[in-house]
Amino acid sequence: MKQYALLDGIRSPSDVQALREDELPALCEEIRSFLIDTVKKTGGHLASNLGVVELTVVLHRVFSLPEDRIVFDVGHQAYTHKLLTGRKGGFERLRQIGGISGFPRPTESPYDAFVAGHASTSISAALGIAEAALLQKRTDYTVAVIGDGALTGGEAYEALNNAGRSRTRLIIILNHNDMSISKNVGAFAKYLAVLRSKPGYLRMKHNVDAFLHHLPLIGEPLRSWLKRSKSLLKSMLYPSTFFEDMGFQYIGPVDGHDLKELSHALTHAKELASPVVVQIETVKGKGCREAEENPGAYHAVSPEKSRSGQSSYSDEMGAALSEFAGRDPRICAITAAMKYGTGLQRFAAAYPERFFDVGIAEEHAVTFAGGLASCGMIPVFCVYSSFLQRAYDQILHDLAIDRRHTVLCIDRAGLVGEDGETHQGVFDAAFLSQIPQITVYSPEGYDELRLCMEKALFCDTGVIAVRYPRGGDQRRHKLPVSDDFSYEDRGGDTLLISYGRLFSECIQAADGAKCPVSLLKLTKITPLSPRLLPIFMRYRRVVFAEEGIYNGGIGQQVGSLLVENGFSGKYQVLAIRNRFVGHGDVPSLLAGLGLNAAAIRDILNREVVQDE
Amino acid sequence: MKQYALLDGIRSPSDVQALREDELPALCEEIRSFLIDTVKKTGGHLASNLGVVELTVVLHRVFSLPEDRIVFDVGHQAYTHKLLTGRKGGFERLRQIGGISGFPRPTESPYDAFVAGHASTSISAALGIAEAALLQKRTDYTVAVIGDGALTGGEAYEALNNAGRSRTRLIIILNHNDMSISKNVGAFAKYLAVLRSKPGYLRMKHNVDAFLHHLPLIGEPLRSWLKRSKSLLKSMLYPSTFFEDMGFQYIGPVDGHDLKELSHALTHAKELASPVVVQIETVKGKGCREAEENPGAYHAVSPEKSRSGQSSYSDEMGAALSEFAGRDPRICAITAAMKYGTGLQRFAAAYPERFFDVGIAEEHAVTFAGGLASCGMIPVFCVYSSFLQRAYDQILHDLAIDRRHTVLCIDRAGLVGEDGETHQGVFDAAFLSQIPQITVYSPEGYDELRLCMEKALFCDTGVIAVRYPRGGDQRRHKLPVSDDFSYEDRGGDTLLISYGRLFSECIQAADGAKCPVSLLKLTKITPLSPRLLPIFMRYRRVVFAEEGIYNGGIGQQVGSLLVENGFSGKYQVLAIRNRFVGHGDVPSLLAGLGLNAAAIRDILNREVVQDE
Repeated sequence: MKQYALLDGIRSPSDVQALREDELPALCEEIRSFLIDTVKKTGGHLASNLGVVELTVVLHRVFSLPEDRIVFDVGHQAYTHKLLTGRKGGFERLRQIGGISGFPRPTESPYDAFVAGHASTSISAALGIAEAALLQKRTDYTVAVIGDGALTGGEAYEALNNAGRSRTRLIIILNHNDMSISKNVGAFAKYLAVLRSKPGYLRMKHNVDAFLHHLPLIGEPLRSWLKRSKSLLKSMLYPSTFFEDMGFQYIGPVDGHDLKELSHALTHAKELASPVVVQIETVKGKGCREAEENPGAYHAVSPEKSRSGQSSYSDEMGAALSEFAGRDPRICAITAAMKYGTGLQRFAAAYPERFFDVGIAEEHAVTFAGGLASCGMIPVFCVYSSFLQRAYDQILHDLAIDRRHTVLCIDRAGLVGEDGETHQGVFDAAFLSQIPQITVYSPEGYDELRLCMEKALFCDTGVIAVRYPRGGDQRRHKLPVSDDFSYEDRGGDTLLISYGRLFSECIQAADGAKCPVSLLKLTKITPLSPRLLPIFMRYRRVVFAEEGIYNGGIGQQVGSLLVENGFSGKYQVLAIRNRFVGHGDVPSLLAGLGLNAAAIRDILNREVVQDE
Repeated sequence: MKQYALLDGIRSPSDVQALREDELPALCEEIRSFLIDTVKKTGGHLASNLGVVELTVVLHRVFSLPEDRIVFDVGHQAYTHKLLTGRKGGFERLRQIGGISGFPRPTESPYDAFVAGHASTSISAALGIAEAALLQKRTDYTVAVIGDGALTGGEAYEALNNAGRSRTRLIIILNHNDMSISKNVGAFAKYLAVLRSKPGYLRMKHNVDAFLHHLPLIGEPLRSWLKRSKSLLKSMLYPSTFFEDMGFQYIGPVDGHDLKELSHALTHAKELASPVVVQIETVKGKGCREAEENPGAYHAVSPEKSRSGQSSYSDEMGAALSEFAGRDPRICAITAAMKYGTGLQRFAAAYPERFFDVGIAEEHAVTFAGGLASCGMIPVFCVYSSFLQRAYDQILHDLAIDRRHTVLCIDRAGLVGEDGETHQGVFDAAFLSQIPQITVYSPEGYDELRLCMEKALFCDTGVIAVRYPRGGDQRRHKLPVSDDFSYEDRGGDTLLISYGRLFSECIQAADGAKCPVSLLKLTKITPLSPRLLPIFMRYRRVVFAEEGIYNGGIGQQVGSLLVENGFSGKYQVLAIRNRFVGHGDVPSLLAGLGLNAAAIRDILNREVVQDE
């Protein structure tokens, strides 16, 4: 194992504080070198972590954790923080079962103040922590670290609107790198870029302050009169930022890779002891040339061993959507800052006028889709399952009530693996199927994906969701492609039902079972075809396997359908019961949940034995 | 019926356009008089509608509906719009079955561009409509009318962030009345108030323009240089608003009760043919002295016949919470601009430092609660069921993953009646029960409400929801109070299960049934007590009645529980199947859904007859 002269000696923040100032550049270099080596091996987020090395080191020197608290927004930029809080050893199994999470997890370390994984939550959480400190008469500080990408999310603004008028010791570090996962969008991003380009302009007010402070006799009264007044003179001498209008003190912009400047700014922020925004400028991927030049591609890195030109559902969706859009000028594509992740790059290049990247703004994306649809366009919102949770209300309110013809292409549906509990797409089947008059497809394989998309775009009405997993088509069977269901009667008393990716596990399970097991794959999981019930009723035993939450899921819905129709056989649901699923590779997670082929086969066999 | 000289002649917007300008003040007076008379009789939203009479009249003269489109935010201020678009007759049965909705409904009129009911969606929807117009090469205008209250919601900001850089003909009318339902909060509201107080300051840039324009020779070059430059001189002569920084043109503030000024401003906005924000200043309740003086109380008015000092679940919750907070300094209360609606006024007065009104910002409210809880406070978020839909992701991500001890007091759970499909609280039981490790109570009656709150605050761990209906305790039975379930064995083969308010209908149904029907009331609907199954299994027939959505609801969950445990009797779920529920009084809606005592009794009797 590689040796690191300084980093190896750091077990907790106090070790960081004990370093001499002149040792810090070397520490930062070691951290960068460690991150690049490790993440290339294990996979994980790279570019964002390289951007905040200096910031994190300085945070751990200026503030005293865990009394002071740092809330990282999104959280995938907390690797340096983890390194400095005694978790270097955990990086060997980063994002694997038994290893550390790729995100802050309070259950993992007392230095992780709050969960993170979804964007734009940090200021809200930090304000809660800071208000608690006030009520508990504590004087420690709460720091939120948020990128300009996460600032495109409405919740961040809701929080700013509340935080500015609070009396808390809240420090918001706005990490401006002009990137979320893709290039950042929106008017506000432009505004921040203007602030960056005018450091002197913004610092001027401090110079005015200093000048007046040193002016004998009239300086001080003049300064205090100016600050109180709303005169033009004030607006000239003390130009205000958006943040100041919102009630914050503002410091910045600060070079986020200059240790001295950072240290000075954060120390000053502490002294203010009131809500303050510190804008820092960083380079995503800093110190790794490939990542600096192409931070989008280096946002998240796959482990070396698995890197290849594999196909994926995302790419297939993107290709199919571009093709359909070529045929039909009504089709629009919307992404919430996930152009590459959802496979829309080809669409964006071919149909720029019909492509909308709205920023990390899932709520707006859905209502915006409703507006487009109300004028006869066919909007397709491409989004990860766990992020669509943000727009549950908008799907109900702005799409479903008036049955707006809109398509939700839901990527990362089902277990996503290494990103852990915040990212597992195991709730969408349950929360979408509740929505009146919605159609939900869960295709398995690219052919079915394309078929369902075609159906959704050109045949169905109202709101249609097409959900598919992370990764590629891994079917090992040849059941016919269907937009409704596929049934293989193998005789016997047992029917095994599933949908989506998990069906391949089910086929394997059935193939190896002691007794014949018939198979049924649902492609349309909501509404269920009326032709299904007669099939179900033929069996004495029905097993439903689901890569999703049990409560409210499709398995329960089928169960109730059965009992409401007089089914008197055995029924069993294998699903995720009342728990979140942590990080790890998908096969291991499925095994742990009893949802892989072997576990399903065990269930099939065990019960048969009991019957005999 | 009262006669209105002008209003009676208006059947469509063209009739408004045909009026002489000097007739408009009289028309506005007639509209006000009609609204006050009608709404006092029928109930409905009053103060907000009185505030936008002039605006709506002018909108219908400056713009041509339905080609131009108006999207009203929240939508309860669209009464004048309905009056001017041929729906005056519908006001007799306003918000009743067969009468018009209290909100814009595209299904009701081609002049209603988009559904409304939840706040902060209008700019998103309008931007979608405006982008569609661009793609379809239409030149009509899209107008969003949004109050400063709705601007505290993050989705509005997400939309502004996208709209400012668009090339659309979008006009955002910011109706500043410094009120949402309660007094508006937040830093941004203060900022808008500053704009209001400085009309001259903001208009100055137009004067500078005009001055330079008339300056011979050097005026024009000077003007264009100034506009391009980023100099201090520019910031002095052309101060910019937040909206201008976001890429909009800005007009305002305009007196929203001055017909001429409004007409001038909106015509100017049209000429700009680019995204523009028009800030207008209005008085909520304008023209009705009681409403002007107390707009909070006159936000929504009950029909004359039902007005009285009845108690309500909201008041009981508020009283209990204040009492508990007196005992325990950890308890905090959070509302999203619903202090009065959720009954928190007493708490707010008694414990101002522990009371947080965050604005219409349910997402922030939940994550903020998570932050408070992470420091050992016990936050209680009091919110309407349909508005909590906004925070589905935050409950999962920021509360449930780390099992933060937080309490959700969910008011208006179940049918709310007159406000219609956007407000019916019929999804929360389904979407909350999916969330891992959550506890959900659905108490019936004040004693049980208090018991469940006490349990949630002082005994339970993690996330606990306590849900209760609009209105007051109307039990007609004396089953024991429980925080788990109550069971009355009346012999016979049939068990009738329900929860919450609907249980009273069930008792009545059972009382009148031909055969004995035993009764079971669930108070804790998630997780279900393990003691329930043995009771269920005693019966040959189980009927579950639910004032909520069927798919994913508690009835289906019990159904699956039964079949998974070998139940072989009859099971039946009476619930809301795959539909939204429109407006009307609750008893009529229950009857229409087959969920009142008579309908449930019919089911109980009919099936028994079939059995024989």
